[in-house]
Amino acid sequence: MVTTWPPNFPIFQEGVVQFAKDIELMSGGRLKVKVYAGGQLVPPLQAFEAVSQGTVQMGHGAAYYWAGKVPAAQFMSAVPFGMTAKGVNAWFYSGGGLELWRELYKPFNVVPFPAGNSGVQMGGWFNKKIESVEDLKGLKMRIPGLGGKVLAKAGGTPILLAGGEIYTALERGTIDATEWVGPFHDNRLGLYRAAKYYYYPGWHEPGTALELIVNGKAWAQLPEDLQKIVEVAARSINQWTLSKFEALNIKALRELKEEHHVKVLAFPPSVLKELKRLTQVALDEEAAKDASFKKVYEAYKQFQADHAAWNAISDDAYSKALQ
Amino acid sequence: MVTTWPPNFPIFQEGVVQFAKDIELMSGGRLKVKVYAGGQLVPPLQAFEAVSQGTVQMGHGAAYYWAGKVPAAQFMSAVPFGMTAKGVNAWFYSGGGLELWRELYKPFNVVPFPAGNSGVQMGGWFNKKIESVEDLKGLKMRIPGLGGKVLAKAGGTPILLAGGEIYTALERGTIDATEWVGPFHDNRLGLYRAAKYYYYPGWHEPGTALELIVNGKAWAQLPEDLQKIVEVAARSINQWTLSKFEALNIKALRELKEEHHVKVLAFPPSVLKELKRLTQVALDEEAAKDASFKKVYEAYKQFQADHAAWNAISDDAYSKALQ
Repeated sequence: MVTTWPPNFPIFQEGVVQFAKDIELMSGGRLKVKVYAGGQLVPPLQAFEAVSQGTVQMGHGAAYYWAGKVPAAQFMSAVPFGMTAKGVNAWFYSGGGLELWRELYKPFNVVPFPAGNSGVQMGGWFNKKIESVEDLKGLKMRIPGLGGKVLAKAGGTPILLAGGEIYTALERGTIDATEWVGPFHDNRLGLYRAAKYYYYPGWHEPGTALELIVNGKAWAQLPEDLQKIVEVAARSINQWTLSKFEALNIKALRELKEEHHVKVLAFPPSVLKELKRLTQVALDEEAAKDASFKKVYEAYKQFQADHAAWNAISDDAYSKALQ
Repeated sequence: MVTTWPPNFPIFQEGVVQFAKDIELMSGGRLKVKVYAGGQLVPPLQAFEAVSQGTVQMGHGAAYYWAGKVPAAQFMSAVPFGMTAKGVNAWFYSGGGLELWRELYKPFNVVPFPAGNSGVQMGGWFNKKIESVEDLKGLKMRIPGLGGKVLAKAGGTPILLAGGEIYTALERGTIDATEWVGPFHDNRLGLYRAAKYYYYPGWHEPGTALELIVNGKAWAQLPEDLQKIVEVAARSINQWTLSKFEALNIKALRELKEEHHVKVLAFPPSVLKELKRLTQVALDEEAAKDASFKKVYEAYKQFQADHAAWNAISDDAYSKALQ
């Protein structure tokens, strides 16, 4: 099993190692999974290819890494202004999302499973205040994927940087801003030492799903009991990951505020509104280019709209009652 | 395995049956679980006792059913104005909640696992409008547990009724109001035919956790691989249940509104504020009566407060950005 994560990357790689151990133990040693972190066997972003070709039997990563190959895969990881973990999981498990995902990966001989969720990520670290849409113009920000496309539409310059390069680039002023993950991972990277302001919410990744990918032939060869073990272990690690993120983000947020005196700021509503509008434009453009993107987009949008109606009277209304 | 649910009760009993099948399949038939619905082997509310005494090895229900025996168990199912599913699960799995739960059940020789969550429930069905705190006075409402205690403090009369008796009582005017679960289960019970107004949010059960309980001796006798199978299958069914609730509630809400023209109304902020204040009073009273209630209450409160700070800049802020 190869992953897209650095060795010992907390929660992400940690969850995969846990998953592999669970499987080995549950199967009484009949199914052993040897885990390689990103780069140990194949480069991180070749995990999908390696699983597809059968070089390895399993992989773990996030679907937006394969956007070049499968544009619609992005809906299976994170979409700007898309659904949060609860909606995404309801869509995957009970709303037809997983069936669409399987369909997308089938031509590549890859079987996907939801296997983790980061929860709502943070908006990122900024060395200039964002007070209006104008402040996004010329902004050099490390932000990949669809989020980057949206920033570009707002006049900013999305920069691609690997995790290990972010801190220095931000400190030296090569970039003005960066997103990373959430309080726990951001704190660990020490980003509070390189930037003045910490913005929320993470409009670009509101509930990033992680994935387990299995080579189709290897999957078909597994007996039914081992298939069930893998499937159930994946759903279990999906739950574990989100809960771990929440618990560690809670602590890290307190540390960032109390010990590092980080200025935690909200994006102004006008900025979020414009980013939302530009997201719509960007998604429509992608849909015009790729039929399967369009198909998944329509299904996702419909589920999100229906979920929003329920959310409004459940979680959102309750949350207001708590305040 | 006995449960507290009626036979074929959707999602609840359905999840348990799924769980049992998963276990049997994953273990290659080495661990077979025979599931009995509530009343088939022991009465629903004697499930805990049956597991405790070893009459059966496993059970499934919700911890507030054992409030008479273990008052603090209520924190492990639902607390008025408590945490929603995401917070509760983070507390259980990564915030010390499960350890406290194990401690509570240890004297009874019972090992608990989180095994399902309903999400935010609905406020219930009412035959009179709730426009101010005054309207709660004299209100006869089917609402059990802590929620009922809070209603009583507001001047209402909490009534205890089993699921099967609710419809008739509401239709005949024996009660003025009732809570049940959420759109899916409420629609199925046909409550829209017996009441005028459907209120939200479900302040009394904002994220009801379901539980798997295992007899301590039976658990200790399981080999490590079968223990792991049970543990992982429970976490998997925990995830499955919430996702299923969300997906089915989405559809049912639409049906209630569009086909049955149900009037979906929000409790006025002043009513929720007063219920929240009275909840505080009720919980403080319980804490004064029972040391372990107090201990768990303190831990729960602390985690909820910390989680609220994170929620404010993650899910809540994002949710506002979406609107």
